[in-house]
Amino acid sequence: MEQLKNKILSEGRVLGDQVLKVDSFLNHRIDPALMSAIGDTFAALFAEEGVTQVLTLESSGIAPAMMTALRLRVPLIFARKRKSLTLKDDMWTEKAYSFTKQEESEVSVSRQFLHPADRVLIVDDFLANGQAALALARIVAQAGATVAGIGIVIEKSFQSGRATLLEAGFRVESLARVASLSEGRVTFAE
Amino acid sequence: MEQLKNKILSEGRVLGDQVLKVDSFLNHRIDPALMSAIGDTFAALFAEEGVTQVLTLESSGIAPAMMTALRLRVPLIFARKRKSLTLKDDMWTEKAYSFTKQEESEVSVSRQFLHPADRVLIVDDFLANGQAALALARIVAQAGATVAGIGIVIEKSFQSGRATLLEAGFRVESLARVASLSEGRVTFAE
Repeated sequence: MEQLKNKILSEGRVLGDQVLKVDSFLNHRIDPALMSAIGDTFAALFAEEGVTQVLTLESSGIAPAMMTALRLRVPLIFARKRKSLTLKDDMWTEKAYSFTKQEESEVSVSRQFLHPADRVLIVDDFLANGQAALALARIVAQAGATVAGIGIVIEKSFQSGRATLLEAGFRVESLARVASLSEGRVTFAE
Repeated sequence: MEQLKNKILSEGRVLGDQVLKVDSFLNHRIDPALMSAIGDTFAALFAEEGVTQVLTLESSGIAPAMMTALRLRVPLIFARKRKSLTLKDDMWTEKAYSFTKQEESEVSVSRQFLHPADRVLIVDDFLANGQAALALARIVAQAGATVAGIGIVIEKSFQSGRATLLEAGFRVESLARVASLSEGRVTFAE
């Protein structure tokens, strides 16, 4: 997605060869017009997948996932993330380890909102090691529902996330694939 | 806003006489079409206020604030919320006490995104005691910027938030004003 790649090139900040900060348009300040274009793109990519719900993780996933759900005319669920969660019977819960933050959090979705007939499109802002997307996929599986696909705004293609998700059998669509952050520069994979 | 009030009546769950759960369309699962209508409404209400940025608080504020910012064609900032935050020089930070959760959290916004020329529309999902909105307003003041107004999706009019914000001199627009939750029933103020 050219508009996104250009935004990453003009506003992304490369901190070391692992970290890309996009606080100016995705993770803290949000560019609504860009989110709208991202929603259009995901909706077009997954138009034939029979999506009944979009699922994301608070907080940075909400804006792009909202626009995707709006275009697909389906509800959005944002999973809650907590460092430690009081287990509740009415929630599906999975652990997700963040290598970036070096901490484990628990993500949870209320059981009342996911059902076996659902075809769920998972949308997230970043794909690194794939642990967050996998936790969401496990929640979908717990509910007996189906993952219709995984839409990622920015993929760190030099990390293992894409391979992990493909091996697990999921369709993965990333709008920007970052091949490298070395020498303080963003290089795209395609 | 009739569409919102009808949604609250049909899907809101009254838990005691203080708590209204709207997890099915605002706080966990999100109704994107309703968020779009909310964005239209806030954008129309504050159209003459010269808004340059919308400011909200993660996570439940993001969806309605995003649609408002999209309609106003301005950026959205979502303040980060942490139970305890490592103070950083590059963030404006304020404490906000939640009576609902009975805990104090710190909300913060990066200094690079708020400037003295900004006219900031604060959008939040709920108004109860007004502490979250006040913390955001204090952050705007720290930046030397101006609060253009405060847009609230659901106001608990039986709590002190509206009076507090009006006394502080802010324009407050609430799309649904809940006068009472007694006897397990939602009664609107107007």
